[in-house]
Amino acid sequence: MKKHSTNLRVRLPALVFALEVMIVVLYIVFVTYDDQTNAFLQNNETKPLENAVYKDYPFFADIQVMIFIGFGCLLAFFRHYGFGGMAFNFLMATFAIQWAILIQGFFQFYDNGKIHLGVINLVNAEFVCAVVLISFGAVLGKTSPVQLLVMALLEVPVFAVAEWIVVKYLKINDAGGSILVHLFACYFGLGTTFILYRPSLNKGHSKECTSYHSDMLSVLGTLFLWVFWPSFNCALTLRGDDQHRAILHTFIGLSASTITAFALSAMLSKNGKLSMADVQNVTLAGGVTVGASVDMMISPGAAYVLGMLGCTACMLGYKYLSPFLAQKLRIQDQCGIHNLHGLTGLIATIAGICAILLASEETYGTSLYQTFSYRAPQEGDPRLAELQKLIPGLEAGLGRTAQEQALYQLAALGTAIAIAAVGGMLTGLVLKLPYLASPTDESCFDDEIFFNVPLHTNYVPELQVPVGSEMENKQVLAMECRT
Amino acid sequence: MKKHSTNLRVRLPALVFALEVMIVVLYIVFVTYDDQTNAFLQNNETKPLENAVYKDYPFFADIQVMIFIGFGCLLAFFRHYGFGGMAFNFLMATFAIQWAILIQGFFQFYDNGKIHLGVINLVNAEFVCAVVLISFGAVLGKTSPVQLLVMALLEVPVFAVAEWIVVKYLKINDAGGSILVHLFACYFGLGTTFILYRPSLNKGHSKECTSYHSDMLSVLGTLFLWVFWPSFNCALTLRGDDQHRAILHTFIGLSASTITAFALSAMLSKNGKLSMADVQNVTLAGGVTVGASVDMMISPGAAYVLGMLGCTACMLGYKYLSPFLAQKLRIQDQCGIHNLHGLTGLIATIAGICAILLASEETYGTSLYQTFSYRAPQEGDPRLAELQKLIPGLEAGLGRTAQEQALYQLAALGTAIAIAAVGGMLTGLVLKLPYLASPTDESCFDDEIFFNVPLHTNYVPELQVPVGSEMENKQVLAMECRT
Amino acid sequence: MKKHSTNLRVRLPALVFALEVMIVVLYIVFVTYDDQTNAFLQNNETKPLENAVYKDYPFFADIQVMIFIGFGCLLAFFRHYGFGGMAFNFLMATFAIQWAILIQGFFQFYDNGKIHLGVINLVNAEFVCAVVLISFGAVLGKTSPVQLLVMALLEVPVFAVAEWIVVKYLKINDAGGSILVHLFACYFGLGTTFILYRPSLNKGHSKECTSYHSDMLSVLGTLFLWVFWPSFNCALTLRGDDQHRAILHTFIGLSASTITAFALSAMLSKNGKLSMADVQNVTLAGGVTVGASVDMMISPGAAYVLGMLGCTACMLGYKYLSPFLAQKLRIQDQCGIHNLHGLTGLIATIAGICAILLASEETYGTSLYQTFSYRAPQEGDPRLAELQKLIPGLEAGLGRTAQEQALYQLAALGTAIAIAAVGGMLTGLVLKLPYLASPTDESCFDDEIFFNVPLHTNYVPELQVPVGSEMENKQVLAMECRT
Repeated sequence: MKKHSTNLRVRLPALVFALEVMIVVLYIVFVTYDDQTNAFLQNNETKPLENAVYKDYPFFADIQVMIFIGFGCLLAFFRHYGFGGMAFNFLMATFAIQWAILIQGFFQFYDNGKIHLGVINLVNAEFVCAVVLISFGAVLGKTSPVQLLVMALLEVPVFAVAEWIVVKYLKINDAGGSILVHLFACYFGLGTTFILYRPSLNKGHSKECTSYHSDMLSVLGTLFLWVFWPSFNCALTLRGDDQHRAILHTFIGLSASTITAFALSAMLSKNGKLSMADVQNVTLAGGVTVGASVDMMISPGAAYVLGMLGCTACMLGYKYLSPFLAQKLRIQDQCGIHNLHGLTGLIATIAGICAILLASEETYGTSLYQTFSYRAPQEGDPRLAELQKLIPGLEAGLGRTAQEQALYQLAALGTAIAIAAVGGMLTGLVLKLPYLASPTDESCFDDEIFFNVPLHTNYVPELQVPVGSEMENKQVLAMECRT
Repeated sequence: MKKHSTNLRVRLPALVFALEVMIVVLYIVFVTYDDQTNAFLQNNETKPLENAVYKDYPFFADIQVMIFIGFGCLLAFFRHYGFGGMAFNFLMATFAIQWAILIQGFFQFYDNGKIHLGVINLVNAEFVCAVVLISFGAVLGKTSPVQLLVMALLEVPVFAVAEWIVVKYLKINDAGGSILVHLFACYFGLGTTFILYRPSLNKGHSKECTSYHSDMLSVLGTLFLWVFWPSFNCALTLRGDDQHRAILHTFIGLSASTITAFALSAMLSKNGKLSMADVQNVTLAGGVTVGASVDMMISPGAAYVLGMLGCTACMLGYKYLSPFLAQKLRIQDQCGIHNLHGLTGLIATIAGICAILLASEETYGTSLYQTFSYRAPQEGDPRLAELQKLIPGLEAGLGRTAQEQALYQLAALGTAIAIAAVGGMLTGLVLKLPYLASPTDESCFDDEIFFNVPLHTNYVPELQVPVGSEMENKQVLAMECRT
Repeated sequence: MKKHSTNLRVRLPALVFALEVMIVVLYIVFVTYDDQTNAFLQNNETKPLENAVYKDYPFFADIQVMIFIGFGCLLAFFRHYGFGGMAFNFLMATFAIQWAILIQGFFQFYDNGKIHLGVINLVNAEFVCAVVLISFGAVLGKTSPVQLLVMALLEVPVFAVAEWIVVKYLKINDAGGSILVHLFACYFGLGTTFILYRPSLNKGHSKECTSYHSDMLSVLGTLFLWVFWPSFNCALTLRGDDQHRAILHTFIGLSASTITAFALSAMLSKNGKLSMADVQNVTLAGGVTVGASVDMMISPGAAYVLGMLGCTACMLGYKYLSPFLAQKLRIQDQCGIHNLHGLTGLIATIAGICAILLASEETYGTSLYQTFSYRAPQEGDPRLAELQKLIPGLEAGLGRTAQEQALYQLAALGTAIAIAAVGGMLTGLVLKLPYLASPTDESCFDDEIFFNVPLHTNYVPELQVPVGSEMENKQVLAMECRT
C-alpha cells in the first residue's frame, strides 16, 4: 500500500475498532442510568407518565430527523458525491453523538464517578453533533471518512471545553445555539479548511457541480431542516411560554428569510433566474438569526426583521465574501458555512444582546428572573426571598445587570470563536498526517474513490446503437451490474 | 425588457419586497403574543407543562411536513418541472402562511386592536395554506412565481371571508375541512385555470410528462401526506374521544381508498398495468371523503365505505371527467384537483349531513352537545342548566335541530363554492395582467425559464464517442458545470 | 388471456374487491369503538387530555413513517424495480394493517361479540404489518401484487396464531419483537421463497442491480427506519422508565452497529471501498439485537456491545451465508432478511434470556414485578399482598422464577420459528397456484410488467444525433410521453 493510498480496507476498520473499544470501556466503567431511567429509583409515588422522557423524546426525534435526514440530503448536493454526502454524514453523526455523550457527560453530567444517562443527554449530544456536521460542510468532498472521524474525535472535546466555559462560567442566553453551535462550528470548520487548503481547487473542479436529481434531493434536506428547526431552537429552552415563543419566532424568522431568499436569488443572478443553491441554503438563514433571542419577548415583528436581515447577509456572503475568502485568504468553504452560520450567527448574537438590554420586569413580569436566570438576586440578597414568594422554586442567581450580561455575551462570542479557530486549525494539521486516506485533488467530489458505485450509464442500454461501435461496448459494460 | 418577458430579476424582488414591507408594518402595528406565549401573563400558578403549545405543536409539526414535504414532492411529478413543483410550493406555502396569520388574525383573533399570536394561529394558517396549495395544483407548470404570489395574495383574503361567514354565522361541522378546505380550494383553482385557459395545451405538450425519478419522488410526497393526514383531520377537533375518532376514521378511509386505487388503476388501464399517477393521487381520496364526519360516531365500517366511494369517484373523475372539462369547458385542471378534492369533497359533505341527521343522545350521550355544539340549548333555556349539571362548562348553543343543521351545512357548501368560483375567476383575470412573467405556451412545464438548471446530459460524459462528432461537442458542454 | 399471463386487469381487481367486501362485512358486523373512542362512554369526569390517544398516537405516527416511507424507500433499491418496491410496499402494508386489525381483534380485543377499536389496535396491527413487510423482502422482485396480497392474507392469521400462543400462554419479554416480529417474519419469508425457488436466478439476472439514484433513495429509507426505530422498540413497553430505557438502548445499539457496519464494509470488500448495500442494511442490525432486552436494566454498555455483535453477525451473513443459502439450500433471500432479522433475532433472544436470568430486586427494586410481570406472586400468595402495598395496582402474576422464564423464552423461540417456517412454506405453495400473475424469470426485478413506466431515455433527447439514424428514431419515441 502506498503512503497516500485512499484504500479504506485497513485504515477505516482500524480506527473504528479502536474508537469502539475505547467507547465500550468508557461506557462500562463510567456510564449508568439517570434517575428517570433507572428502574430501581421508581417507587409507588412515581407517576410513569411524568417521566422526563415524555418531555424530551419528541424534540429528540425531531432533531434526529434534522441531523440524519435533513443534513444527509442537504449535503448530497454534488452530482457525483451523493453517496459521500449522505453516508459520511450518517457515519460522522453517529460517531459524534456517541462521543459527545461521553465527553459532555464528563463535563456536565458527572456525579459520584458516573455519567448519568437519559434521553436529555442525547438531546444535548445532538447539539454537539450539529456542530460537527456544520464544520463538515467546510471540507465536504475533500476529506476521507477516516479524516472525518478524526475531525469529530477532536472537535467534540474542543467544543466541550468551550461549552463548559460558557455554560459554567459565563452563563449566557443562547437557546438556539447561535454562539455555541453556529459560530463555533463555523470557525472550527474554517480553521480546518484553511489548513487543508488545496490551491488547485480554486481553478474549479470538473466534478464540483450538481445534477437535477442531486439538487432535488438537497432541497428535500433543506425542507426537513426548515420544518423541524423550531424543535431545535426550543429543545433546550425553559418549558411553557419560553418554549412557545421559541417555536413562534423560529417559524417567523425562517418564513421571512425564505421569501427574501427567492427575491434575492432572482435579483442577484445575471439572467434573472433562480438558483437551487440559494433555495437550499439561504432560505434557512432566519433559523440562525433568531437563535440567541428566540425565547425572549422580542415581538413577532422583530423575528420577521431578523429573518430578512439574516437572509440578506447570507446571500451577500455567498455572492461576494465566499469567493474572496477562497481566492485571497485560502479559506475554501465548500458549503458556504461562513454565510449560513457565521454571518447569521453574528447577527443573532447582536440581536440577543439588544434583547437582553431591553428586557425588563415591565415586559416579562417575574418571569424575567427565570428566562434571564443570572439576573435573579444572589443567595443572601433579601430581594431573593421576596421573589421566591412570587415564583416558588426560583433559584438564586448572580445578580447581574443587563449591561453586565451584555459583556458576558460578548465574552462568550470571543471565547467560542477563539477556541474554535485555534482548535480547527490544529485539527487541520492532524488531518494532514499521512495514512488518513486523504483524496488527491483530482479525486475530490467523487464517490468513486470511497464507494463501489453502480455504473453511471443508467439509461443508455435502452438506446440502439450501431453494432461494433464504441458505444455498443459501453452498453455491454453497462449491463454488468455490481454484485 | 419586453412586455411579456419571463425574466424575474426585477419583478419577483419588487413584489416580494413590497409584500415584506407590508407584512412587517402589519406585524409591528397589529401583532402581539397571546396569553399562552406572553411571559408577563405567567404567574406562580401557571404550570409550564400545561401551556397550549404542548397540545398544538405536535399537530403543527405534522402538518408542516405535509405542506412543505408532502405537497412539495407530490407536485414535483413533471419530468422537467421538479424544481418548479418543489420550490414554488416552498415559496407559496411560506408566503401563504405569513399572510394567513395576518388576515385570519383580523377576522378571528383580533382583540383590543391586536392580533394575538400563538402556535394555534399557525395551525389555523396552515389550513389556509393547504387551500392555496390545492388551488396551485390546477395551474401547476403554467404560472410564474410572480403570478403564484399574487394568487396567494388574493386567495387568502377571499378564503378568510368565506371562512368567517361559515364559522361565525353558519356554524357547521367540518373538522377535516371538506367544505372549507377541499371544495373551496378546488373551485377557486378551477375558476383561476378557466380564465388562464391555453387552447394549445389541449393538444398535448412535449414536456407534460413524468420520468422514472420524478414519479418516485412524487409517490414519496404522497406517502408523507398519507401518513400525516390523520393529524390534519384531527388538528381542530375537540380533544379526547373526538380527536381519537378522527384519527381512526382518517386512517381507515385512507386505507380503503388505497387498495381500491390499485384495483381500479389496473382495471381501467388498457394494458392491465398500474399507473403511478393513480398511486400518487387516487390513494389519498379517502382522507377527504371522511373529512366532514371524521369526528362523529359514524362507525369504522362507514369510514371504510367512504374511503372506497371517494376513491372510485376520484378515479372515474381522472378517467372521464378531467378530459371532458379540459376539452369542452376550457378548464385545464393540471393535477386533477377536481377529482381529488372536488368530487370527494361533495361526497364528504353529503356523508357529513347524513351523520348529523343520525346523531342522537342514544349514540353520543351528553357529548352530543359538545361535538354538535349548535344543538346545545340557547341561553335562558331551562334545559341548558340541566345539561350543565352533567357537563360542567358546557356553553350555550343555538338550539338547532339536526334537520335545521343539515340546511346550514348545505348553505355552507353553496357559500364556499360560490365565493371560491367567483374569487378564482377574478384572480385569474388579475393573473392575466402583463408584467407578471407568465410563461409562454411553449415554455410551460419547463424549469429552464425560471431556474438555472444543471445540464441534463447527466451521465453521457462517461460515454466514449468518436472524436469531432456532434456528440463530443455536447460532452464538452456537459463538463461545464453551473457555478 | 393465457394461463400464466401477468396482466392485472382482472386478477388484481377481482381479488381486491373480494377482500374489500369481506373486510367491510366483518367491520360492520364485528367492529365497534373502544372505551377511549366512544363518545357515549365519556362523562363529566372524563378528562379529554387523559385520553389514551395522546399516549399512543405519537408512536403510531412514527411507526407509520417507518412502514410507509422507511420500508418503501429501502425496498426501492433495485435499478428497474423502484415502482415495485415502493408501490407494492404501500399496497401490502395498507392491506396488512386492515387485515391485522380484524384478525388480531378476534384473538386479542374481542369482547361481548365485538372487536373494540382505538389507536392502540392500530399500533398492534403495525407490528403485524412489519412482519409482513420483512417477509416481503425475501421475495422482492419475484412476485406479483396479486401474490403479495395473498401472502399478506395468509401470513397475518398464521402470525396471529403464533402471537396468541406466545402472548396468552407463554407470556414472554420481547418488547422490540425480536422473536415475534423479526424471527417469525424471517422464517416465514424464507419458507415462502424456498418454495418459490427459481434456479435460473442463481446465475444472476441482468436487472438485479442498483443505480446511483436507487441507492440514494434506499439509504433515505434506512435513515427513516434508523431515526424512528426507538419508537418502534418502545411503543409496547410499560410507560415511564421502561420506555425511557427502550429508547436509550435502541439508539445506542443502532449507533454501535452503524459505525461497525462502515468499518466491516470497507474491510470485507475486495478493493477497500464501501458498499451502499451495507450502509442500507447492516447499519440497522443493532435495532434488532437490543430488541428482546430493550426495556431491561442491561446497562448502556451492554446495548453498545449488542449493537456491535448484531452488526458483525449480519455482515458476515450477507457475505458468506446468503450465497450459501441460495446455492445450496435453494433459499433465495432477496433482501437478506436472514441476516438482518434472523441472525440478529437469535442474538437478541439469547441476550434477552441472559438479561432475564440476571434480573433481580437489587437492580430493579419492586419494578421487577412490573417489567417481568410473570414473576409477580400468584393470586392467593401472601407475598402478593405485601408487594401490592408497595406497588398499588400490581396484578397477580404467575410466580415464575427467572430460570423457568428462560425456558418459556426458548419455547416461544421454537414456536415462532416452527409456525413461521411451516406457514411460510404452505403460503409458498399457494403462491404457486396459477392465475396469480407470477412474473416469468426474465421479467423479475422489472417494473415494466406491472407498471406503465415512463420512457427510460431521460436525457438523451438533448443530444444532437445524425438525422435519420437509429438514435434519432429513439429520440422521437422519447418525446412521446405517457398520457
